[in-house]
Amino acid sequence: MAISLGPNQYGKAEVRLVTVEREGPVHHLKDLTVSTSLRGRLERTHLTGDNTDVVATDTQKNTVYAFAKEKRVGEIEDFALRLGRHFVGSFEQINGARVLISEHGWDRIDVGGRPHDHAFSRATGEQRTTAVTIQNDRAWVVSGLTDLVVLKSTGSEFHGFPRDRYTTLAETDDRILATAVTARWRYRSTELDWSGSFTEIRRILLETFATKHSLSLQQTLYAMGEAVLEARDEVAEVRLSLPNKHHFLVDLGPFGLTNDNEVFYAADRPYGLIEGTVLRDDEDPKDAELAWYTLPAF
Amino acid sequence: MAISLGPNQYGKAEVRLVTVEREGPVHHLKDLTVSTSLRGRLERTHLTGDNTDVVATDTQKNTVYAFAKEKRVGEIEDFALRLGRHFVGSFEQINGARVLISEHGWDRIDVGGRPHDHAFSRATGEQRTTAVTIQNDRAWVVSGLTDLVVLKSTGSEFHGFPRDRYTTLAETDDRILATAVTARWRYRSTELDWSGSFTEIRRILLETFATKHSLSLQQTLYAMGEAVLEARDEVAEVRLSLPNKHHFLVDLGPFGLTNDNEVFYAADRPYGLIEGTVLRDDEDPKDAELAWYTLPAF
Amino acid sequence: MAISLGPNQYGKAEVRLVTVEREGPVHHLKDLTVSTSLRGRLERTHLTGDNTDVVATDTQKNTVYAFAKEKRVGEIEDFALRLGRHFVGSFEQINGARVLISEHGWDRIDVGGRPHDHAFSRATGEQRTTAVTIQNDRAWVVSGLTDLVVLKSTGSEFHGFPRDRYTTLAETDDRILATAVTARWRYRSTELDWSGSFTEIRRILLETFATKHSLSLQQTLYAMGEAVLEARDEVAEVRLSLPNKHHFLVDLGPFGLTNDNEVFYAADRPYGLIEGTVLRDDEDPKDAELAWYTLPAF
Amino acid sequence: MAISLGPNQYGKAEVRLVTVEREGPVHHLKDLTVSTSLRGRLERTHLTGDNTDVVATDTQKNTVYAFAKEKRVGEIEDFALRLGRHFVGSFEQINGARVLISEHGWDRIDVGGRPHDHAFSRATGEQRTTAVTIQNDRAWVVSGLTDLVVLKSTGSEFHGFPRDRYTTLAETDDRILATAVTARWRYRSTELDWSGSFTEIRRILLETFATKHSLSLQQTLYAMGEAVLEARDEVAEVRLSLPNKHHFLVDLGPFGLTNDNEVFYAADRPYGLIEGTVLRDDEDPKDAELAWYTLPAF
Repeated sequence: MAISLGPNQYGKAEVRLVTVEREGPVHHLKDLTVSTSLRGRLERTHLTGDNTDVVATDTQKNTVYAFAKEKRVGEIEDFALRLGRHFVGSFEQINGARVLISEHGWDRIDVGGRPHDHAFSRATGEQRTTAVTIQNDRAWVVSGLTDLVVLKSTGSEFHGFPRDRYTTLAETDDRILATAVTARWRYRSTELDWSGSFTEIRRILLETFATKHSLSLQQTLYAMGEAVLEARDEVAEVRLSLPNKHHFLVDLGPFGLTNDNEVFYAADRPYGLIEGTVLRDDEDPKDAELAWYTLPAF
Repeated sequence: MAISLGPNQYGKAEVRLVTVEREGPVHHLKDLTVSTSLRGRLERTHLTGDNTDVVATDTQKNTVYAFAKEKRVGEIEDFALRLGRHFVGSFEQINGARVLISEHGWDRIDVGGRPHDHAFSRATGEQRTTAVTIQNDRAWVVSGLTDLVVLKSTGSEFHGFPRDRYTTLAETDDRILATAVTARWRYRSTELDWSGSFTEIRRILLETFATKHSLSLQQTLYAMGEAVLEARDEVAEVRLSLPNKHHFLVDLGPFGLTNDNEVFYAADRPYGLIEGTVLRDDEDPKDAELAWYTLPAF
Repeated sequence: MAISLGPNQYGKAEVRLVTVEREGPVHHLKDLTVSTSLRGRLERTHLTGDNTDVVATDTQKNTVYAFAKEKRVGEIEDFALRLGRHFVGSFEQINGARVLISEHGWDRIDVGGRPHDHAFSRATGEQRTTAVTIQNDRAWVVSGLTDLVVLKSTGSEFHGFPRDRYTTLAETDDRILATAVTARWRYRSTELDWSGSFTEIRRILLETFATKHSLSLQQTLYAMGEAVLEARDEVAEVRLSLPNKHHFLVDLGPFGLTNDNEVFYAADRPYGLIEGTVLRDDEDPKDAELAWYTLPAF
Repeated sequence: MAISLGPNQYGKAEVRLVTVEREGPVHHLKDLTVSTSLRGRLERTHLTGDNTDVVATDTQKNTVYAFAKEKRVGEIEDFALRLGRHFVGSFEQINGARVLISEHGWDRIDVGGRPHDHAFSRATGEQRTTAVTIQNDRAWVVSGLTDLVVLKSTGSEFHGFPRDRYTTLAETDDRILATAVTARWRYRSTELDWSGSFTEIRRILLETFATKHSLSLQQTLYAMGEAVLEARDEVAEVRLSLPNKHHFLVDLGPFGLTNDNEVFYAADRPYGLIEGTVLRDDEDPKDAELAWYTLPAF
């Protein structure tokens, strides 16, 4: 019986990097969490503990910090590409890299109605993300956002679903729809106005959520992805993961009160979970494969 | 040897309440987490399991939901006072109540540059809080905010501290100062423009953090409390809990690079923790006692 | 209008300390999270930023690590006493200290049925804790445990509670009772067989939870505290915080099934929260005060 | 430009199910978190909001609870297979299902040295898991465990790694090695003694971690997977995800002390992350594909 090493990768996860750039008295802040993973000819360490091929995860961390100084960090997509290409280009045995970056937003504190030069307050929990994959001389960029929590208090229905012996859910033509958007979109290029593209895609996602009358969270998901693809040529496909954060109408009947969609209980668990992909038909799925490839975590 | 029941309270914690108020097509959202605790003549259930005196925690939860419908929720301070007074006024054996409310913010989604009528996105993780105490016919209101994460990238020094054989920290005249503000302030009254007062106090805390040149986080803490007391007559005292969220300068020397306060490692643990009270000298501390009283949790 | 500094403390929170002690080939592991807070004459740093009195929190952290080497860590109570007394004894301006320690358990991995010399697996999430307070030449020890999650699937009832217009809860003579025990007990002495005492108190708490037929969680709380005080002379009082982790019977009626206390939904929020103190009548409450004193966090 | 729906699935996540089975006075507890996802002909709801095909996630939840009553839950693999096959078999438009179950352990409380009939305390944070995939009439079972935190205080080295200009890590021939094991293994069959198999695989993973002298965490990973495959014919492949929970030696030099691998700082972030697969060469990878297939989450 022969046993061998299958798909594998290793790296340093969650390097917390904050940089300050000075433009005269005005400071600019970047707050990133960077994870790097390397792939390649790594049998020796697995099979014998010979670490000749193992670029230490500590070295990966150091590289993140050094690169933040050597050049400006800039957009997270560019920083991830630079890091990934460095590892693949510098070590013969490393032919692939995956770099994940989350960017945490900060707003300037208003003082006397004017944004302060060097004092900031943390923005929402939402994060801008990128997942860059390098394989030999190819590169893929999948950017996105996560933890964008949204809610609409009307404009959402859910009915017409099949009823079996286990179905008790009432149909509704007016419910709260709330979710925490995780969106990831694959770019067709590795050289773009990343920031401009992100801003527009985020705007489209939000506006579509707000204005699309919803008959199901699936419909909302598809509409959000479709709107991005229709407006942004640089995007090849969009993947969305939308937990249905249930807001249940409280039964006030026992207290002699009616509840006209006014009082809700926001539940933690369980929650619905809708996951889907919206893509261009003219894209070759083979192109995408490594962009999304990861070791399964369920 | 005699044993007896000492200080105690019980209630329902973390009731998640979301309400929608309609002003024509414009919806207004309230998103609260409400915890109620009752105090009083509760020996019987503790000593014998006789529940004659125990207003069920389920009933407390129902009351929160019913009250949200019967009147508007309004400001969290008023809602907490109403709930607390209801319990103390309705049950002879209950002579005290503590109601804690956290309010989670939502912003309207912009669509075409205009705020949407009924679609919202979650604001920052910051929460507006109140802790209302009722004891017989008296009431105290301690409001505040929590998880207001702020950072200044300069304007902070730390030096002149004593050095013993365990001291290795270098002095610095320029460091990042970052913290997650938990502030609680005791109001002198139970009838106020809560929202107006909150807005101003929050503004003062932020502006003081931003503009006060800091020689220690303790100095910043005191300045923040003092500024509130100087500007707001309605506040008797301010308590602040400020974790020092360390941002350590990365040593880039081994890579032949200098780090001119540009590249930082944001550490999770351990962290400094500065806690302090700023108060008016003409306040009788006896007045305050029950306002802050709680069973210790360290 | 005069404003001044009220109660305050500062220190280093959550220092993660792991020590390995070697007894020949057999290793012994200690895994602690240590938080230190100092109190004293600290006006100068607050009012002017003069740090002459501020034993840096970094120094406090260093002291924890150095003390772990200079002597054995030993029992957490002794380690906390040593640390607290060091700070109060070494710095004239520091007259008080609070040291909190949580100990995380590890079990030896069994190999071939025998406990391994130096390989361990993490025990439950339960933690053994101590909160030591030093004030000048006095000392108090409040030890305890936290996150001890327990459940009994019968032997628990809840009925006889008052019914008002907001009461809908059904009475029950058989329910699941589940909680995550946080217990803290004040010792009468600062020199004890800490480990032996802890083991016995923990055993009593668990056995009482298991065997006491429960008519309310309050009754269970009191019984647990009382049993400790009856059996353990070294304990002056016990404080318990018991969240009622609701397990709701699922209504299977719509599916034509009966649910004979077999299928439950374990809810996250809201939860009941029962907090109480059980104490000896012959203890002077004045003795206890500083032992429990902390800045309120609600 | 044509746009269409790509890979998608939807379901109810994290249904918290606790069951009590009675064997005379002796109660048996099961504590599960169940997530179901359905796949199939779901274009209509995405494109038009027509929910004719959408088995409501609420119905999925109800089915979990009803099935827990209709038959015994039994082993999580069997319960997941039953649920998945039910959904695929009952609804023409549903041709695939993924059921994830985590089982949380409970130990009996000892009373007077004997395990109690109906009182339990929560075991470690470790969870036994299964991920069952149904596609038409095929089925795959990937079981595993997660959050098994282990540490060895010696028997681990790390040296011989390449040094570039960003490398500062010192080589070591004695370090603490600690990780939180997430292991998943694909079974070759859908009818097995699941519990017996789990127990043995877990034992092998633990014993291999303990006894394998480690030159790298990669080597430990491979050895753990290999040992399982060598001993357990029913397993086709093993995937492991091992965070390197760094324990850094504290530099006690400044205090005039030497640190002979005695005092460590347990760091939170960043951490190394080693992920890998160990598989049998005679397995057809095509067999495995759907077993592991999921929408990428990075």
